[in-house]
Amino acid sequence: MKINSKDAIVKAAISLFNTKGFDGTSIRDIAGKANVNVATISYYFQNKEGLLEFCFTDYYEKYINNLEEGMMELEAGAYSCMKKVIDNLVHFHCENIHLSRFILRELSLDTQMVREMMSIYSAKERYYLTKIIEKGIARQEFMKINISYFIIQLKSLLSMPFLNSQYVSEVLHIFPHEKYFADKYAVELFKWLESILTPAKTLSVQKEIS
Amino acid sequence: MKINSKDAIVKAAISLFNTKGFDGTSIRDIAGKANVNVATISYYFQNKEGLLEFCFTDYYEKYINNLEEGMMELEAGAYSCMKKVIDNLVHFHCENIHLSRFILRELSLDTQMVREMMSIYSAKERYYLTKIIEKGIARQEFMKINISYFIIQLKSLLSMPFLNSQYVSEVLHIFPHEKYFADKYAVELFKWLESILTPAKTLSVQKEIS
Repeated sequence: MKINSKDAIVKAAISLFNTKGFDGTSIRDIAGKANVNVATISYYFQNKEGLLEFCFTDYYEKYINNLEEGMMELEAGAYSCMKKVIDNLVHFHCENIHLSRFILRELSLDTQMVREMMSIYSAKERYYLTKIIEKGIARQEFMKINISYFIIQLKSLLSMPFLNSQYVSEVLHIFPHEKYFADKYAVELFKWLESILTPAKTLSVQKEIS
Repeated sequence: MKINSKDAIVKAAISLFNTKGFDGTSIRDIAGKANVNVATISYYFQNKEGLLEFCFTDYYEKYINNLEEGMMELEAGAYSCMKKVIDNLVHFHCENIHLSRFILRELSLDTQMVREMMSIYSAKERYYLTKIIEKGIARQEFMKINISYFIIQLKSLLSMPFLNSQYVSEVLHIFPHEKYFADKYAVELFKWLESILTPAKTLSVQKEIS
């Protein structure tokens, strides 16, 4: 019963944050939508900032778990490891589209909380991604690439359709909350990955064709 | 003198929106930062929504101008046209990073104004991008690709470093407001473009090498 009302509060909050923005949403609005008392929200989260911190932590703990699950494949190969990471993170964003959309938007603000979150989680994420690339280069699975520019592109491609789900669905008629999209989009990102990291492989395949 | 205070208001507003969010910023905050009276803001923009609309229109008019300037190269070739469009839009975002960052964030909200802006400008953008791709495919400059998935990736790559400029500078130590970044990043996007659109060309070059 209690867990249900906590979940209901988070769900209502995220939905309101995505339509009215964080500052445009009051605790009263959230209580109304979640069908709970304002006191219940205070009990679980103290205030709106507590709710925001809960959302950030919830997002990042799951995000890093998905990344770490992919990392377990690193010994088997850097390329298959990176594919697994991409597949996991695309499906994670798809399955948690409302939370992801809200957090990805908040992350573009220049606030104290964003700085704190970045110093913990983004540094960790960067460490893991760098490790995969360096291993891939050392094993000659990957070309030598600029790792920071690779991370910019990877993070761009992993975020945009979920952050801009309204644009993607209304202008392009593609529905990023559907598993069908996540499956298809992951394959597009594998193509991108291959073209960026493994041109030698592409070359040998194309030589065989010709 | 008057133009200066209008500019000062817009500049102050965008700066505050990027640190405190649109709803977290009051007209009084903007007036204070711009060193003008609240009445001056009312005179130019009526209210905060008027200021928001001004920012959206300003961003999109410039964005579409840059796109249309690139379109003029379409007769010369679809590939060089797409490169010109990418180069223009990367430099536009870089040169107007505060405005771009704010608008790109607002665009991820599910509001009436976003819907209106998308129905005018995003539809136009989609029309132009589709035209380039279709021309490229018809002339056999490009492979047959899924245009919507291409647009998702292109828009991801064009937005992220500017929307997440804080992440990019604090975690990756890359500075997306610098011309140096825009020049280098555009070249990275040309590589992506070539790998996605013109494998035939890559093939022939690689055959010569081998």
